[in-house]
Amino acid sequence: MADFDLLRRLTLDTGGKIVLLVMDGLGGLPREQGGPTELEAAHTPNLDRLACEGSIGLSIPVARGITPGSGPAHLALFGYDPLKYEIGRGVLEATGIGLEVNPGDVAIRGNFCTIDENGIITDRRAGRISTEEGAKRVELLRDIKIPGIEIDIDIAKEYRFAMVMRGEGLNGAIADTDPQRTGVAPLSATPMDPAAQRTAELVNQWLDAARERLKGQEPANMATLRGFAMEPGLPKYADVYKLRAACVAVYPMYKGVSRLVGMDVIQTTAHDTTLDEFEHVARIWNDYDFIFCHIKYTDSRGEDGDFDAKVKVIEGVDEALPRLMDLNPDVLVVTGDHSTPATYRAHSWHPVPTLLWAPGTHMPDRGCAFAERECMIGALGQFPAVDLMPLALAHARRIAKFGA
Amino acid sequence: MADFDLLRRLTLDTGGKIVLLVMDGLGGLPREQGGPTELEAAHTPNLDRLACEGSIGLSIPVARGITPGSGPAHLALFGYDPLKYEIGRGVLEATGIGLEVNPGDVAIRGNFCTIDENGIITDRRAGRISTEEGAKRVELLRDIKIPGIEIDIDIAKEYRFAMVMRGEGLNGAIADTDPQRTGVAPLSATPMDPAAQRTAELVNQWLDAARERLKGQEPANMATLRGFAMEPGLPKYADVYKLRAACVAVYPMYKGVSRLVGMDVIQTTAHDTTLDEFEHVARIWNDYDFIFCHIKYTDSRGEDGDFDAKVKVIEGVDEALPRLMDLNPDVLVVTGDHSTPATYRAHSWHPVPTLLWAPGTHMPDRGCAFAERECMIGALGQFPAVDLMPLALAHARRIAKFGA
Repeated sequence: MADFDLLRRLTLDTGGKIVLLVMDGLGGLPREQGGPTELEAAHTPNLDRLACEGSIGLSIPVARGITPGSGPAHLALFGYDPLKYEIGRGVLEATGIGLEVNPGDVAIRGNFCTIDENGIITDRRAGRISTEEGAKRVELLRDIKIPGIEIDIDIAKEYRFAMVMRGEGLNGAIADTDPQRTGVAPLSATPMDPAAQRTAELVNQWLDAARERLKGQEPANMATLRGFAMEPGLPKYADVYKLRAACVAVYPMYKGVSRLVGMDVIQTTAHDTTLDEFEHVARIWNDYDFIFCHIKYTDSRGEDGDFDAKVKVIEGVDEALPRLMDLNPDVLVVTGDHSTPATYRAHSWHPVPTLLWAPGTHMPDRGCAFAERECMIGALGQFPAVDLMPLALAHARRIAKFGA
Repeated sequence: MADFDLLRRLTLDTGGKIVLLVMDGLGGLPREQGGPTELEAAHTPNLDRLACEGSIGLSIPVARGITPGSGPAHLALFGYDPLKYEIGRGVLEATGIGLEVNPGDVAIRGNFCTIDENGIITDRRAGRISTEEGAKRVELLRDIKIPGIEIDIDIAKEYRFAMVMRGEGLNGAIADTDPQRTGVAPLSATPMDPAAQRTAELVNQWLDAARERLKGQEPANMATLRGFAMEPGLPKYADVYKLRAACVAVYPMYKGVSRLVGMDVIQTTAHDTTLDEFEHVARIWNDYDFIFCHIKYTDSRGEDGDFDAKVKVIEGVDEALPRLMDLNPDVLVVTGDHSTPATYRAHSWHPVPTLLWAPGTHMPDRGCAFAERECMIGALGQFPAVDLMPLALAHARRIAKFGA
């Protein structure tokens, strides 16, 4: 639905508390014809009990047949139509490595490349240097000073880095400086809109400085920039949903997208277990109406193609679940942002098992386990992921009647 | 969904092969309370096995409660929102009788009528003459020559014919010449847009010539024209889906709609059986990525009100199915364009049983027979028919990930 004008009008600050527990890439497929999916194979007594008590169904991330990346998939779960609200590549990359992107900022993806003595690109990816080597080059660029703006930069992976420019009157309508081929020089930053003229000049000052500092650093002796994008200015949770919202996630990208919709991002460590994450939720329980808790490793094991390991991750979440239930949420939603079948080793378009538990407000159904084939006969049916937030809010009694 | 901008961006030419087998008017209703539908009554071991292995569901042709004609129903199956993309009446009638309609052509429906000695219409349908009598009148009109344009004409049925005008700068914005009542003369062709002025003049030259040639041919001694329409300029399969697509159908109308979306139309004969059609599919197998195969007689027997005969047609398709399966398609979709319950003797709005078989990529479900009530518990749920093409493409691994 994603009708924020309507939601802004109808949402209420009634104090009902919602937990959105996302197991990334939760949905799966059987390893062999007639066999169970990962979720069906997993022993999950706690989730099954909640499925049995609550309503279950299947959520469609973006549209039937469309496989989403993590950005659009999370936007949909957060209630934003991902075909309408797009997070630019630069912003996704920057938030993905933990750089803060705020309104007015321009975020950029960068590549180290190799140029010859005439300034001609001979390798667009600088021989795919290691992340360690990439990080060393980033250090050389970190203290480039451009008057009037502030710059954050960090390594992403191998030859890739991200950068955020912060200052008055910046504009992200700038063409890529990566010419997309070798045998030519890197392009200058050129504005695609007259309003981006000054920003392009600042970017070119930065590129000149970068060229100086990378001199002699072969194979990574120059940088190209692409995916220039502004902070997307998404409507915020407090405004459209009247929710004080927080994000408990381990990976930077999910923190980044949460920040863009106005959630407070809770500090975690890279080695936090599911139980650690639930402890964070417990710690902040009294300060928030809505807590998004993200579990990464279901997706990671799916991408590895490791069916059994994905099953184990799901079982681990189930085992830790009582810690979350002890908090007595009014609404608990358990779902994935998309499917990552181990047999695919990749994201897929298949609809995602979803559980909505809200004692006293959810419809009963025939589904009595948290599993793909049970969700097909659940009360939620198959529904667009963007409808999940209105459903969660309704079950928390946070949406007023529409019309008299 | 029908978001061609998105699909154009995401579709891939990966070589996955798709067969869309349409049994026209497949869906049905029980003959008596508590009894089976036509599809439920049919003995279909092959379809049941595919349903058991694959994903099943119910497709909604246009919108809930809306009974589609064959044109919009097929547009939806082909992925075109039939409320957005309309094929004009003239084009549908012309393609329906096998006339070719190409970009720039104007297609027109015609009626023979009776006029008195003062040129006043006394019967708008020329006494509903037989098709044979109608065909004789068409022969009289066939070689009317209008400078600068080429004209195709053929009988449709009884007093109805269709015509295609071909030439530079034609425009279809012309009002009907049928005044929709007797006691007045046929109208002249008048442009509804200044750009159609010249076309209207050409049409009037043709009408004058037709009046001359039909003189004395009572009761069919004049013709009226209506439903002027241009070739609709639909996005083409090769462009939006990156598919080399072909149509194997016996009836002209289905060939016509297929041609309008850019499919190659394979030559068939009017007496081809289902097995003959599958042999055509086999013959062209290596030349195409996507083959639409249309079975007409499920609909015909439904329109006859002959429940048992419709059951027999379905069983015949099931019997021939191994010929199709021998080709090893990556994706086989079996569905109907709409329902034609024998108890209705007409098209209906009921959702249509749909089977999607794509080993290794489809979700398993609880449905284990190809039948209405099994489809209700299937993995595809109830879905808009326009989503079928994205689903088929996804299962053939022909759609890239959306966003990062």
